[in-house]
Formats: sequence, C-alpha cells, structure tokens
Amino acid sequence: MELRATPVSRRERPAKPPLSKDAVVDVAIGLMRAEGLDRVTMRRVATALDTGPASLYVYVASTVALHAEVLDRVVADLAVPEGGSWQDRVQQLLLAYGTLLGTHRGLARSALVVRPTGPAMLGLFDTLLGLLLEGGVEPGRASWCVDLLLLVVTAAAAEHAEPEQEDVHAPGDPGSGLDAVRAGIASSGPDQLPHLVAHADVALAGSPRQRASWQVQAILAGAARSPLPETGVRP
Amino acid sequence: MELRATPVSRRERPAKPPLSKDAVVDVAIGLMRAEGLDRVTMRRVATALDTGPASLYVYVASTVALHAEVLDRVVADLAVPEGGSWQDRVQQLLLAYGTLLGTHRGLARSALVVRPTGPAMLGLFDTLLGLLLEGGVEPGRASWCVDLLLLVVTAAAAEHAEPEQEDVHAPGDPGSGLDAVRAGIASSGPDQLPHLVAHADVALAGSPRQRASWQVQAILAGAARSPLPETGVRP
Repeated sequence: MELRATPVSRRERPAKPPLSKDAVVDVAIGLMRAEGLDRVTMRRVATALDTGPASLYVYVASTVALHAEVLDRVVADLAVPEGGSWQDRVQQLLLAYGTLLGTHRGLARSALVVRPTGPAMLGLFDTLLGLLLEGGVEPGRASWCVDLLLLVVTAAAAEHAEPEQEDVHAPGDPGSGLDAVRAGIASSGPDQLPHLVAHADVALAGSPRQRASWQVQAILAGAARSPLPETGVRP
Repeated sequence: MELRATPVSRRERPAKPPLSKDAVVDVAIGLMRAEGLDRVTMRRVATALDTGPASLYVYVASTVALHAEVLDRVVADLAVPEGGSWQDRVQQLLLAYGTLLGTHRGLARSALVVRPTGPAMLGLFDTLLGLLLEGGVEPGRASWCVDLLLLVVTAAAAEHAEPEQEDVHAPGDPGSGLDAVRAGIASSGPDQLPHLVAHADVALAGSPRQRASWQVQAILAGAARSPLPETGVRP
C-alpha cells in the first residue's frame, strides 16, 4: 500500500474503466478464483467495479445469470479429447468437466441450477451428442443420455465440493464421509438394514474416479437400450 | 399479536423446554416448512429455542448435520410401495423421494451434500437395494446403482428447485428454462452446434416426469450389464 503525504484531489483519479458484460464477468472470475463462486454476488462485483449493483443489471440479469456466464467462460477452455474409442472420449471429456467443476468452490453447485444456454455449455453438450451419434446411439436416446451424463457429473462434483467454513467438522466428529456411512450401517444391524449389512463392503468399495467412470459406462449402456417414451416429437 | 396493558415480570415466563436433539430438529423442521431449509441455521434455531448457538452444538455438530437430521426425519415418512414389478416399485419409491425433496425449498440441495448416515436414509438405500437384488442384479452393481439412482433423483430435484428470491427473473428476461435453451441453440446455428441443431426437438422433448422415469429405466438397464472395476473387494 502506498502512503500519501498530501491529499489527492478526486478529480485526479483515473477514469473508471467502461462497464461491459466482459468486464463484469472478468471481475466475477477473479473473485471466484480468490474466494469461490459462492462468494460472488452482484453487490461485490459492483463494488470491485466502483459502481452500484443497479448498473450491472444492464449487462447481467441476476446472480444466477452471472454465475452462468462464469461457468460458460471457464467451460470454453475445455479441450475436446482426440484418439481412443468414442466411449473413451466421452469418459475423458466428462472427467475433465468434473475436474473443472471441482476446481472452484461453489462452481459445481451453481452449474447444477444453471441451464446450459451459453455457447460453451451448449458446445459441450453438442460435442458429447456427436460422440454418442458416432457410436450409433439413436438421436433421441443420445440427447437424453447427454443430459443425464452432465447431470450426474455435475451432481457428483457438487456432492464432493468443499463444505462452507461453518460446516467444517470438529475433531472427533464422525463427519459425513464414508466412515460415517460405515458406522451408520454398523450401528443399525441386519434387522434394520438386511441388504446393506450383507453387502456393505462392496457398496462402499472403489475410488471416486472408479465410481464416476462406472457411472458413465452404465448410463451409456443403459441409454442405448432404453427407448424414449411417447413425447409427441418424431425423431 | 396480543397487546398487554401491564408489564409482565420475566419471572412469570414459563420455564424453557428442555433442550434435546429432537427438540432442535422439531424447531428446524418448523422453520423449514415456513421458509425453506436454506433459511435454517443453528443461530435461528437457537433463537427460537431461546438459547445460544453454542448450546446446540452438544446435540448437532453443524448446520450441515442439522440439515441431515431434518432430511432423515422427513424421509422416515416415505411409504414402501407394494405391488407391481420390482422396477415399478423402484420407480414409485424414487418418484416419491424426488417429490418429497421438491416440497421444501433448500431440501434437495442439502440432500446433495449430505451423505446418508441417518437411519431413514440408510433404510431408503436398503429398500432400493433389496428391490434390485429381488430383480436378480448382482450385489456390487446393485449397490453402486442405488447410489447412482439417489444421486440422479436428488440432483434433478435440486436443479428444479425454486430459485432464491433475488434470482427471480425480471419480465422480458428469457429466463433459464427450456425456452432459453431453445433460443441459445437457435442463435448459434448449425456451424457451432451441428448435432444439437439437427436434434433440438427430441433433445428438449418430454415432461420432467417422463425424463425422470426414463433416467431410472436407463440406469437400471445399464447397471445390470456393467461389471464393476477391480476394487480389491470380493463381492
């Protein structure tokens, strides 16, 4: 910080940078990298831009819309995988998307309530749809399958997201991890939970990555075999 | 509100009810029914119980843990479906669970970050696992499948949850619904989104309930056919 010996006239301050949607999203991304997307509000972005929240609504309609713009900007950097089978490329792209969502606190939870209307999110959907079509999946099932795959990857990222500060568990607290699930099963016994007690080991086995990969594989296999209901739309 | 003509001595107030975990969860459920679970904090429950937040931590470790207790209490009221094929009963139970999550604002989003360690949530998992085992699904795939089904139903409920007040869209705003997705696809064109533009109608077709039902069906079909990776656990 600079110490000033003499007062500075406000008239000497540099002109404010012009407001634009890009400028708003740039500031929001900076705040997200520093503190997580859950701390990014219209008010804080306005303060950082030396203006009032009302001035921002010209460019972005709401905090949810702002988070959608942030999501779209970071998703635009995802590389489309090359090489390998179409299933491998679906797995790689979804793994990269899930990792991206897990990088910034609050991003996964925002992604869950944001519909993909930005060009990069729609581009991600289109790329995945193209891979399934390449694999011979019928277009209707393929598009519903991509919707489901993105929902699962987003939800898994949100589920594993870092908790809010207040919610960090005290030492000695069993917490909410797999150990707590195992303890819950053990304390219930086979009368209450006959199937879980019998199969607890396999139910809790595997790494998060193994489970994510299996989920994608199962959804691809099942979607290809499951005809859509009658929706009134001709494929 | 009652108008009092004369001041009332604090000594005439009734004794405070004794604190207990049940009392804490009762108050939290009352607040949730009135305002949504996202407004239920340890501080507000403490105020309602005429005590300080520190007194509550003896009974519930954190706000997340409190929300988990609330979830477990409401899930305990779910009825186990009777009659129909095992797939029908899985569909009915998941539909009821999704509907329950959608009833109270904030409940679905909490359920997403809460692992099922309470007796009712573990009971729901056990019931679903029992139905898949009845259907002849191998135990490992069946338990991973139930985990995936609960994730999808919870995520879909969170995705459709009522937005925060601040985020309600202004009139004329395209919003974040399917119309906005359709507009986004239309404004991009076939160069950017070749597959989505070609299949937009079927991609956006169907009711939320049709889509939810198809998702369960596809996951059941795929999980039964997808062997688990090597986890070091013998089924």
